[in-house]
Formats: sequence, C-alpha cells, structure tokens
Amino acid sequence: MITVYDLRFGKPQDSKKTLQTNDLDFHKFLQLVHMEFVIPLNQKFVLVTTDRTVVDYGKFKELQNGSTLYLLQNQHQDLAVAVEESIHFVPHYNTLIESGTFEYFAEGQEALPCSLAELVDNSLSATAKNTGVRMIEIRLMFDKKPAVIVLDNGCGMTSKQLNNWAVYRLSKFTRENSTFKSDQQGYVSPEPVPRSLNSDISYFGVGGKHAAFQIGESVRMISKPISSPDVHELVLSKEEFQKKEQNKEDVYKGTILNRKPGDFSHIKGNEAFLQDIIREETGKHSFTAVVITAICPEHIKYLKQDFKEWTRKLAHFYHYYIHGVDGNLQNKPQGSNGSPAINILVTLRDKSSKSPIGVNLRNVNDDIQTLYINSAVDTFEFKATTQEGGIVDGVLRYHPFLYDKETYPKDPNIIQAPPEDDNDENEAAVMNQARGKRDIFECFWNGRLIPYTTISEFDWCRQPYKTTPDLPPECYSRFSGVLFTNDKFQVNATKQKFMDLEIKLKHRDTLFIPVPKVQILDYSLWDKW
Amino acid sequence: MITVYDLRFGKPQDSKKTLQTNDLDFHKFLQLVHMEFVIPLNQKFVLVTTDRTVVDYGKFKELQNGSTLYLLQNQHQDLAVAVEESIHFVPHYNTLIESGTFEYFAEGQEALPCSLAELVDNSLSATAKNTGVRMIEIRLMFDKKPAVIVLDNGCGMTSKQLNNWAVYRLSKFTRENSTFKSDQQGYVSPEPVPRSLNSDISYFGVGGKHAAFQIGESVRMISKPISSPDVHELVLSKEEFQKKEQNKEDVYKGTILNRKPGDFSHIKGNEAFLQDIIREETGKHSFTAVVITAICPEHIKYLKQDFKEWTRKLAHFYHYYIHGVDGNLQNKPQGSNGSPAINILVTLRDKSSKSPIGVNLRNVNDDIQTLYINSAVDTFEFKATTQEGGIVDGVLRYHPFLYDKETYPKDPNIIQAPPEDDNDENEAAVMNQARGKRDIFECFWNGRLIPYTTISEFDWCRQPYKTTPDLPPECYSRFSGVLFTNDKFQVNATKQKFMDLEIKLKHRDTLFIPVPKVQILDYSLWDKW
Repeated sequence: MITVYDLRFGKPQDSKKTLQTNDLDFHKFLQLVHMEFVIPLNQKFVLVTTDRTVVDYGKFKELQNGSTLYLLQNQHQDLAVAVEESIHFVPHYNTLIESGTFEYFAEGQEALPCSLAELVDNSLSATAKNTGVRMIEIRLMFDKKPAVIVLDNGCGMTSKQLNNWAVYRLSKFTRENSTFKSDQQGYVSPEPVPRSLNSDISYFGVGGKHAAFQIGESVRMISKPISSPDVHELVLSKEEFQKKEQNKEDVYKGTILNRKPGDFSHIKGNEAFLQDIIREETGKHSFTAVVITAICPEHIKYLKQDFKEWTRKLAHFYHYYIHGVDGNLQNKPQGSNGSPAINILVTLRDKSSKSPIGVNLRNVNDDIQTLYINSAVDTFEFKATTQEGGIVDGVLRYHPFLYDKETYPKDPNIIQAPPEDDNDENEAAVMNQARGKRDIFECFWNGRLIPYTTISEFDWCRQPYKTTPDLPPECYSRFSGVLFTNDKFQVNATKQKFMDLEIKLKHRDTLFIPVPKVQILDYSLWDKW
Repeated sequence: MITVYDLRFGKPQDSKKTLQTNDLDFHKFLQLVHMEFVIPLNQKFVLVTTDRTVVDYGKFKELQNGSTLYLLQNQHQDLAVAVEESIHFVPHYNTLIESGTFEYFAEGQEALPCSLAELVDNSLSATAKNTGVRMIEIRLMFDKKPAVIVLDNGCGMTSKQLNNWAVYRLSKFTRENSTFKSDQQGYVSPEPVPRSLNSDISYFGVGGKHAAFQIGESVRMISKPISSPDVHELVLSKEEFQKKEQNKEDVYKGTILNRKPGDFSHIKGNEAFLQDIIREETGKHSFTAVVITAICPEHIKYLKQDFKEWTRKLAHFYHYYIHGVDGNLQNKPQGSNGSPAINILVTLRDKSSKSPIGVNLRNVNDDIQTLYINSAVDTFEFKATTQEGGIVDGVLRYHPFLYDKETYPKDPNIIQAPPEDDNDENEAAVMNQARGKRDIFECFWNGRLIPYTTISEFDWCRQPYKTTPDLPPECYSRFSGVLFTNDKFQVNATKQKFMDLEIKLKHRDTLFIPVPKVQILDYSLWDKW
C-alpha cells in the first residue's frame, strides 16, 4: 500500500489515493498512477517521497509499506495544501537493553550491588504476603555457562502479569488506571508500619529490566503464580532483539511458554544448569526465578573477587528487613520481632572452588548499620512530618571517645588512608572529627537503603556558631543517624537517590517531635536542641 | 482470532487450532469448539485462559484478539505439553513522557537549566555546519498560552529524520548500524578540534524527548531541512497518548504534517502564537523549532523569577561555545577566533511586563568561568591522554590573595552564608581556603559543561603531606581549573555526570604532559609538581 497525493494543481478534493502495490514493479506502478489520477500520456509529472527524493526504479524498491508520495509537476513544486503522512515511532529495543547501562552508575562505585538490589526489591515485594518464611536467593553459577539467578518463594506472576512485567515503564500505578489493569491488581497503598518496612519497593516498571540487562544480555523469567498449576516462562535477549530487527519483525512480539512445573523438555543441551533450576520447581507452591545469562565478564570478575564487599553492601541495603525494626542489636531480647523472617541467601559456585561459598545476609555483622547500632551509647528518636503526609522516623546515635578509645565506627566500605605524619594538632583534630566529612544520616525509603542520598545534619543537631560551655564542640561530630521515610518522598527510578527529601525536611512547615523512649530518653537533651 | 490448544488427552499433534471469532457470541464459539475438536456432546470439557480462568459468557467478551485458550477436561488439569502464548510488550508511552521527570533532577537544584540545555545541545549540533552565523533562540512566551520555544537556523530535519527523532533510544550510533539508517546519515566521528568544541553533543536519542516532557506535556516539532522546500511538523502530547490508549489505538502511530513554509491553516484559534512562529518561516533556508506547551506552572514561576540565575547557568554550560576556546577574556585580542559566531538568545515575554526582556548569553559576564578567567594571574596548561584514545585538555589557574584583597572569585550560584563570628583563627583559615570545599576542576565534554561532575585535584596539584619551605600551603587552595574532554569519555544520558572520567584520569597509564604557553609558561613550576 502506498498513499499518493496529487498536488500538481493544488486541488484539495480527491487528491489522495491509496494504491495497492503488491507485486507491481515501478513500470506497472507508473501505469497505475496514470490511470488512477487520469493523467494524459503526454503530460509530464514526477513522483517524489516526502523528503523530495524522486522515485525511480531503485527508490521504488526501497519504499516501505505505508509510504506517502507526492504527485507533482516538478520535483520542487510547492505544496499547495498540507499533506498528512502516517508514521510509527515505536521505541527502539535499546530502551529495554541499554537503559540500565546509563542509569546504574556512580563514578568510582561498582553499580552491581544496586542492580542486584533492584531484583531483590522485586522479590521482597513478591514475598510480602507470604505467611511462612520469605526466601530470596541470589545464586551465582560461574562453574559452567555463567548465570546470575535470583529466586524467591513469593506469589509469582500469572502469564498476564509476566507480559506486563516486560512492558517498559508500565509501573504499578499506571496499571491501575489504564487498559493494562487486566492483571486484576489495582494498586493499593500499604498500611503504615513502623519505619515503613512495608516491602512496597517494586515500583517503576523499569527496575527489573534495567537491572537484568545491566548484569547480562539475556534474561529468562520463570514464574508460577499461586492461582495456577502452570509455570510461565519468558526470555528477553539482546540477540533475539537484534535478530528480529534484522528480519524486520516486530521486536516487541514475544512468546510466553506455559508448562507443567519441572518440565524442561524445551531446554537445550548446553543449558544443563537450567534443567537443575526447573527440577526444583516440583512441589513449590509459587515462585519466581530471574535467570540472567551472557554476563559481562567484568561483572563476573567483580562478583567473584569482591564477594565479601558487595554482600556487605546488600546486607546494608536491607539491614532493617533482615533484622527487624530495631536492626542488628547483638544483645537483642528474644522474640522481639513478630514478622516472618526474611532470608536473603547468596551463593557462589565457581570452577576453581570445589564447594560453593555462601552467606545469609542476616549473618553479616560488619555492615555499617550493625557497627553503628552496637557501638552507640545512647540513642535519641524523633519523628518528622511534612504537610503532604510525609512521615520520617529518625534515630540519632551517640558514639563517644570513651576511656581513651574511639567508639565511632569506621566505614568498612572506605579504604582507610595511610596515617599522616603524627603531630599533636592533627591528632586533636581527628579526635574531634570522628565522623569526619561523613553526613550524619543514612536514608531508608520504605525500609530500603537509598545509597546515594545522605543528610548531613539538621539545625537542631548542628554545632552552633557560639560554643556553649556545657556541651563541648566535639560532641557534634560524634553522631550517626538513620532516617526512615514513607513513600510520600520520591526516589529516582534506580532508587539510588531521593528526589526531594532534603528540601522537604528542611521546609519550614515540617515538624520535628521527639519520640519518648522510656528507658533511655533524657528530656534535658531535647531542651538543649 | 483465538488460539485453542486441546490438552485434554495430552496429544502433541493437531492439538492447536486458531479459530475465527468474528461476531461469534460465546454460545456459537462453544459450538465451533465442539466441531473443530470433534468433541461428542456428552463429553465434558472446560475452556480456560492461560491464567486458568474459566471462560464463560463474561470472560469471553473480555478476550482480546490473539488470546490463547486451553481446552481441558477440568480447570486444574496439568499441561501435558508446553504451550506457547504469543504476547506483545511494546513500551508504555510513559517511556516518552515520564522518563525526564526522573532523569533530570538533582536534589535542591532546579532541573530546568539542564533540560533547556539538552534542547540547546540539539540546536548546536544542528547548526554545526552552518557557514554563517549560528542562531539559537529560547523564547519564553508567557503572555498568552504559555509556551517555551527553542528555535535554530540549523540544517533542519527531513520527515524521515523527524520520524526517527520521535523514536526513543534511537541514538545516532544505532541509526548507523540498523534498519533505521534510511535517513542516509551514517554517523562519522568529528575531526579533533581544540578543546573538543566540535558541537557533537546531541547523542543518545533520549535528550530531546526527556527535556521537552520535563518542561511541558506537549511538544510540537517544526522543521525545514535544507534539501526540501517543505516544512515538517509533528506533535507528541500526553493528552494524545492518553486518548489513543483509551481508544485502544496504537499509541506510537502518529502523523507528520508536510506543508509549505508559512502555511498555518491547520492551527486552531487559541494558538495564535503558533501562527506568529509559522509566519517567520517564509524565506528561511532551513530551521528547527521545538514548541513546548502545557508547561508545568512551577516551571513558569521559576523561569520568570529566576531568569538571571538560569540564564547565567546556561551561559556557564556553553561558555566556550559562545566565547571561543579561550573563553570570555575581557581584554581579548581582536579577531582571535576564526569560527562562526554562535548566538544563544533568551527572551521572556510576560503578561505583566510591557516589552519582552532578553539576553544574549554572550553578554553574561558573571558566570563563574568568566570570573575565573579574568581573575587568574597565571595559568598552566596541560594535556592528559588515556590508553583508549581519551584526550583531555586542562587549564589550571592561579588566584592569589593580592595586596590585601581576595582575587579568588565567589561562585555566583552559591548563596553566601552569613559571616561567622570573627575570630582570628577563622580568618586565617578562610584566607588559606579561598577555594574552600570546592573542587578545582570543572569538566566540559565536547566543549559543553557537565554540571555535576567536578574533579577535586590531581596528585601533582595536591598539597603534599610534608609542606615544602618554598611553597606556602595556602597556594594549593588558590587554584581553579577546567578540563576539556573528547568523546572517548562517557557521560550519562542526561549529560549531568561523567561516567568514568575520574577513574580514567587517575589510572596509572594516563599520561599528563605540560603544554608550553610561550607567553606565560614558567617551566620551573612544572619541575615542582
């Protein structure tokens, strides 16, 4: 089909005809134009594209179905009337496979912990309603064909939900208000819970895709929802997209495979590890497995060599989900947390090592939150509320220089600089600056760390210009703190930064109130602040 | 069309049939199923969706064209064979209209200068090959229906290029290697030029869309390419996308209007300002106009109230494009720059004011680069090269405390804190820390400021641990500097940050060499460093 506008004489009526071009060569097409527009054989005309390229034998072959042409007296004739040209502008498939590359980064920081966290977020969200134990596993299978697998025993996805998962920017909010809502899950904001640990951290319709394609070039989603006996499987891969583009196929058309749990008859020989994953399905009530392959070699290197570092980072991200609202208190009273346990396991299987290494993030005891919590000699809790319903639970902790010993913990993520030349002045300065240039507050959104936003301090915990006789100035450098925000505060799509936390907290209408903690609160402190 | 798999007896052959459902009600459809799959009337069966919902009268009405159903003995029967289900996962239109909201932000910073800069980038790129003056205009029309217009006299776009512009993530690199390359413009990397001022700063296939939809909810692109007598026009708007989604139309199908320059017969009554824009087209050789409407009210407020601030920021972004490689030297030798002048004009037309206010960014004399350049008493130039071909031109400037006067400029973007209580110690500290906590180097990528990456210092300009007798320590706080990188360094999609500059520059294989500047170079300085 080609649409031709006859603009030779500028007549606005009957100037447009859509011609069938099936099997026509250029010569036949010209004859058709002659007939359709009733052009005497001795009259000259020219056919041009909307870019004013004259259509000849060669150009005619290139024309795509749905093209628009002008019929003119000469190539440069003015358009007497405006001409509508139909176009398509479906986003390029790089939308899915490349976005992550540019989104997950922080110069000098390894992006992988953030993208793994994005997948863990989805698992936390999926297991939110589990009545029993919540299991989230990150398996690094580097012994054969390298794969990163994130598994959870959450509610799983129906085939419709899996389809929606693949749609870029289809967030849970969009789903509710649009024709996409056919997955029957209109979004309902969660009930308030202490410190906003509501597991509502799967959000924008971009995280899973960004994260998976930041880690590798192929992602296989395998999921069984509670409501159905079937497992649903969907593969998105760069290779597949490229193939479809080359063959001029619809790149966003795909196939979900619906099958019996444990049925791996579709798996090819070199993907034996997939057979193992699929064998485990039998008997599971519901689950989701994200299987990422074609892993970037640099990532494999990092994940192996810096295993301890990035698992500690993940333990930091989910500290309060793993340990409960009070965090990893070493001398915790028994049975203080009523919510079902969340296990986040990480295992690494490698060619060189005989047995896999593994860690339950709950057993990580050197993440910075654990260090802060257990070295604080006093804590002060407060609450901030904004006019738009934003709620922030805050904890300020105090780490003194005690009996000749520094109790302010060192950040395990920061490689300590070599000690400078000793001199007394320096030493005093260091002692007064336990915190150094670090900001006081780390910030958790819906209970999950937002790693690249920190808040240095508030007016009421800042060293005043005039030093007071009863509070030595070095006190002010001995704080650590945590802020827990609810979802009235916005984070960016990669959950690396808050968009408006500091501005909202420092707004004059934001109210701070102390929260009495019977056992340790000293009201006289509040009066001073 | 509905595809039905007969899975009652698990037979792998002949189990799939695609049935025409035109005008069939559920009853007729059941009869068809009976016939097609040869089911005796006394035999029970059930039809379910792939989500295992039983298809009844109501569900049948909801089924979409292309749906897949199972024919089973009972609702919960296992799938004896795996079943393929065809799906579509075209990105949601929020990909185009919402991305910008999350991408352009920096907490506490106004995002608008960055998104306006993105549009100016496109204009700089479009005017790169102009032989005459390069004109870029930002017009803020707030007197009637609010509009932000960015106009340039660059090469314009053909209708095919305009179509490609609308395709998300279709970067110039992708175009070259794919079926999209039909715009006939394979990407060729520009020739090296001093300080990489190559105008090659329109890059990722996301900037224009992100920026436009960050500013408003509707964008009209109007462009005339050099090669054609016609103007091409395309409107993308949130309203239009929503309408198409509600009507279940293809959201990525649109219309380019091709017309004679000056022809505004398609413009409705309430858009008189568009008629003015279109009237200006006549006689122009080529141009592009980006017309953004449905502007967010907060943006209008900011653009009006902080006009001086954000135009200064833009002048800072494009300092070296506006003023040439040496920047805005007040006592510049005449005719030192051979390249054609780039004019970036900003005008604001408001209800309250009678005449529009306006500024040519070249006349902004209080951007921080201008202040640095004109207050430096000495400069030192260097070049860094990385193993991958990265080239960085660097300038280090020196701003002494001279004759009792601070020559280190104050950053006009930072609101000065109230002076602290005087005490001698403080004053000395301030004098030694002219630069304060500021990093030394601002970083320009292809000549354009990347605002949120700065480099604090390099080893060779850092205050050493042991102070040397011949260089007082306060010297080291009296530097400012600029780095000009070529495109071997990556920036993120919003051009707010470098992705790898600092790591690459501090890599041990990166070579720094001094660049002799005959008139002022003092080699003895280099020896010290």
